Amino acid sequence: MENVQQTIKELESLKTDMVNKDFLLTWQKSEDEILATIKVAEALKSLFEKNVSTRVFDSGLAVSQFRDNSTRTRFSFASACNMLGLTVQDFDEGKSQLAHGETVRETSNMISFLTEVVGIRDDMYLGAGHTYMKEVAKALDGGHKEGVLNQRPTIVNLQCDVDHPTQSMADLAHLKNYFGSLEKLKGKKIAMTWAYSPSYGKPLSVPQGIIGLMTRFGMNVTLAYPEGYSLIQDCTDVAQSNAKKSGGSFQIVNSMEDAFRDADIVYPKSWAPFHVMEKRTQLLRTNDSTGLKELEKQCLANNARYKNWECTEEKMKLTKGGKALYMHCLPADISNVSCKEGEVQDTVFERYRVETYKEAGYKPFIIASMIFLGRFKDPAKVLGILAKSGKRRVGL
Amino acid sequence: MENVQQTIKELESLKTDMVNKDFLLTWQKSEDEILATIKVAEALKSLFEKNVSTRVFDSGLAVSQFRDNSTRTRFSFASACNMLGLTVQDFDEGKSQLAHGETVRETSNMISFLTEVVGIRDDMYLGAGHTYMKEVAKALDGGHKEGVLNQRPTIVNLQCDVDHPTQSMADLAHLKNYFGSLEKLKGKKIAMTWAYSPSYGKPLSVPQGIIGLMTRFGMNVTLAYPEGYSLIQDCTDVAQSNAKKSGGSFQIVNSMEDAFRDADIVYPKSWAPFHVMEKRTQLLRTNDSTGLKELEKQCLANNARYKNWECTEEKMKLTKGGKALYMHCLPADISNVSCKEGEVQDTVFERYRVETYKEAGYKPFIIASMIFLGRFKDPAKVLGILAKSGKRRVGL
Amino acid sequence: MENVQQTIKELESLKTDMVNKDFLLTWQKSEDEILATIKVAEALKSLFEKNVSTRVFDSGLAVSQFRDNSTRTRFSFASACNMLGLTVQDFDEGKSQLAHGETVRETSNMISFLTEVVGIRDDMYLGAGHTYMKEVAKALDGGHKEGVLNQRPTIVNLQCDVDHPTQSMADLAHLKNYFGSLEKLKGKKIAMTWAYSPSYGKPLSVPQGIIGLMTRFGMNVTLAYPEGYSLIQDCTDVAQSNAKKSGGSFQIVNSMEDAFRDADIVYPKSWAPFHVMEKRTQLLRTNDSTGLKELEKQCLANNARYKNWECTEEKMKLTKGGKALYMHCLPADISNVSCKEGEVQDTVFERYRVETYKEAGYKPFIIASMIFLGRFKDPAKVLGILAKSGKRRVGL
Repeated sequence: MENVQQTIKELESLKTDMVNKDFLLTWQKSEDEILATIKVAEALKSLFEKNVSTRVFDSGLAVSQFRDNSTRTRFSFASACNMLGLTVQDFDEGKSQLAHGETVRETSNMISFLTEVVGIRDDMYLGAGHTYMKEVAKALDGGHKEGVLNQRPTIVNLQCDVDHPTQSMADLAHLKNYFGSLEKLKGKKIAMTWAYSPSYGKPLSVPQGIIGLMTRFGMNVTLAYPEGYSLIQDCTDVAQSNAKKSGGSFQIVNSMEDAFRDADIVYPKSWAPFHVMEKRTQLLRTNDSTGLKELEKQCLANNARYKNWECTEEKMKLTKGGKALYMHCLPADISNVSCKEGEVQDTVFERYRVETYKEAGYKPFIIASMIFLGRFKDPAKVLGILAKSGKRRVGL
Repeated sequence: MENVQQTIKELESLKTDMVNKDFLLTWQKSEDEILATIKVAEALKSLFEKNVSTRVFDSGLAVSQFRDNSTRTRFSFASACNMLGLTVQDFDEGKSQLAHGETVRETSNMISFLTEVVGIRDDMYLGAGHTYMKEVAKALDGGHKEGVLNQRPTIVNLQCDVDHPTQSMADLAHLKNYFGSLEKLKGKKIAMTWAYSPSYGKPLSVPQGIIGLMTRFGMNVTLAYPEGYSLIQDCTDVAQSNAKKSGGSFQIVNSMEDAFRDADIVYPKSWAPFHVMEKRTQLLRTNDSTGLKELEKQCLANNARYKNWECTEEKMKLTKGGKALYMHCLPADISNVSCKEGEVQDTVFERYRVETYKEAGYKPFIIASMIFLGRFKDPAKVLGILAKSGKRRVGL
Repeated sequence: MENVQQTIKELESLKTDMVNKDFLLTWQKSEDEILATIKVAEALKSLFEKNVSTRVFDSGLAVSQFRDNSTRTRFSFASACNMLGLTVQDFDEGKSQLAHGETVRETSNMISFLTEVVGIRDDMYLGAGHTYMKEVAKALDGGHKEGVLNQRPTIVNLQCDVDHPTQSMADLAHLKNYFGSLEKLKGKKIAMTWAYSPSYGKPLSVPQGIIGLMTRFGMNVTLAYPEGYSLIQDCTDVAQSNAKKSGGSFQIVNSMEDAFRDADIVYPKSWAPFHVMEKRTQLLRTNDSTGLKELEKQCLANNARYKNWECTEEKMKLTKGGKALYMHCLPADISNVSCKEGEVQDTVFERYRVETYKEAGYKPFIIASMIFLGRFKDPAKVLGILAKSGKRRVGL
């Protein structure tokens, strides 16, 4: 339990104001709050691996709302809730935001009478996902204030149009573990670059999340994409400002090679151009299936102009000592494996496969940490009781 | 814990015979049983609000069977089961009652080996929902008697064609809280009235449930609807007979204004006429989609003749001091909000919105109470142990 | 608790090597392991009936993967997991094995970070189900070895193309209980026979599972089917070899009457011929719907030639004293009840109905036992602690 005790001690010195609050965008959180989230996740992971129960709820509901298909995030959220003692209840409102003419305000209250956390994934509509989460947050604030809800549930953003904090925080935990500490990330170069994929309409939230978070730790963050594949302007502004504050740097280039050169970490991943996502959102709203097909065709044709944006062995040689850490949120489009031509060459992926699996393995604990910090005023104390009691998770 | 102790004490004086029994129709329950259900619900709500765990099951399944779409009832049932320690397993048999040619008898046994409670919602077919629940009840009786089932699960009616006891009992709990006591309901006038809605085929179970339950407490119950929108005759007979016994009254009028006049409580809500539901049931059974479309068209046209059956500010002025309590099972069809013309004027609804949310907030606890009383012979004792142990629900 | 203590004692003398292993085919398990599985199931059933909690997990996920519709197995698995304290999370990958281009290896790891057990039903494709389970097993082995997974989850075969161990083991538990002991099964004749059904494409796993398991206990196993309805050759080879070792016998006949003659137990159940399932698998793989319709037509026509393969009162008279035990995995095709002409005459089925329900009632406990033995090195010790603590499952 030594490392857990150490983590608890470090946690005590951090100033956080997360109880009954939501985790929507990492840049809305203070540095201490980001650190606390990482530390609680590590403590929970450590207890889990030592077969110590982390049940801090004797009962309670966790609502999951997936407005897009998901297997991995669904399992991460289910795992996080389960290890804390919460039961997941899916809220499936169908495709439309206001099924049965119910207002978001009303429904948000109706599903929350005994709810501790609401996990929402809403990444399909640009300009909609984050907005929707704020709407739910406002409804829950109101319901709690008006005496309808006994408790104010915490919303966890499981991916929106703007950020993907459970991914970027899991990535950060992985980097911390891989390089030894957050301090050691200072001065490291990370290349967040667009990569070719034969699919279309992938959200922008991963690259936006990565540049928004990694610029806070003194890293040199390079964002690379072919002309036209820009991100939401606000997000690159955030990255720019973060880099300035942290003593790192942020730059945008239009060449994968330039980004890879001397990089310590590469994160090659496809996304749809901002303006395509905007157009797509409009077409989805008006149910214009002809327009959507036409857009897909155009977009795929445009993507195809950049098939050379692939993370190959050759490009990997450009990185620091040829040994940059390859990262991906998974599933990756692996050339000759999951598709003919994709984001990454098969041998590169296979060499880092286990690392990408471990990277994903942080997610359940990051989500559990976000819930934990959203519910407990004194997280160090609660973790301390867990560690001390040492109740077995498996077995008697 | 003072109020919980008081509730427990009051509970001890009530005679109930609910263990291993079902909660199908409120009028099958004695007055003591109705009171006990309210009291246990209040005790559970109170413990919940004090962060005291109400887990009385260490494990056990709760089967939910929804033969109609549902978000609110699904969450209420899930919440109720969760707070008691039961895990919900959905039984989704598809549209047909006898999917795979399985008999109800067999399936009811197959899903019940470790089951403590079966929650059923079956309100689409007139003459079918209640009948189906009785069939399941018979199967469970048989299975238990024959040694197939170790325990006889309790069925909770989550809405059928006849009654909606979880709704009407939650409404009663809300009224008790709003007016201070059940005694204070004596002599109060409640107007259960039809209201215009642009949709069609809404079940009769809410108005039937309300007149069947509220007539037991000495209230003056007025049921109002346009000609042709009558309820099941048996239900109005029950209301008539209840009113006689309780010293209240029950009358049917054909004017919303007459019903509202001097009312202490108004419950304006749309429903389909009995004969339309009968016709619809036949058409659904024969899969006659042309017939169904024609019926919907006729029915909507007929509804449209009564657009003035709206709960307006003007009509509210007719009520006692202009301040009758507005009730609704939600979601309401709010004019200019959820539809162009609906059941209630937007300003009226908004004034009572928080009250309707609180009304809905009783439902999880009412369902939990029904389960609790269906499983424990000495509910006062079990509640006493919970209160005394004071185990935390959230936190350690 | 006397019988539980006795079972625990017997369990101590058995040699098993099941921890972190899978339960895929009964013939991969030693006789001691088969016995241990029966004994743990009986102990869990006994504790359950005495209202003693069998929660051995404080938290943990159980993944269920149903690649075919299922109500009964779904409930059995949910019940088993619930009684042990695991939460089921459905993994629904859609129809295709590789939805989103994810490899089985990756997905198997992604859903297993906090997973204790993976229950898989995959019986539609001949040559695919068992193969798929082995693929998942390999992925989990790799993930555990590579440090991706903290624990190696146990896979439970909930029915594949080859075996249906949860069914055959539940059947064995039922026979043990019915005849008094496993020893008493020696020399008993069981007739596993094909029976007519108006449906098509039923899996071979039940008859294969029955002949593969029952031949291990010195029983005289007769497999009967009309010409052309043979099983997988490997499975009849296993049965042959088992019979030789156990001192029983195994024979194949082409007459239901011959099989029934002097039988102590009859198990009349329809299945599709091996070569039809092979053809069907090919057609399903190529999405050949015309071919599938044609095959169904041919197959049903062929089935219809054997309508006299029905378990009638007359045929039952041929059995030992006319009183053989009738078994079925349910649901049975009952003539004049679930279909016009089927596997079994209505009066025969009704006479044994309660027995078939009890037979099914062992399944949740058999599955729980498989999970239990897959997770705990010293099952006798863990059961002993449960029995001693005597913690209530229902109530406080």
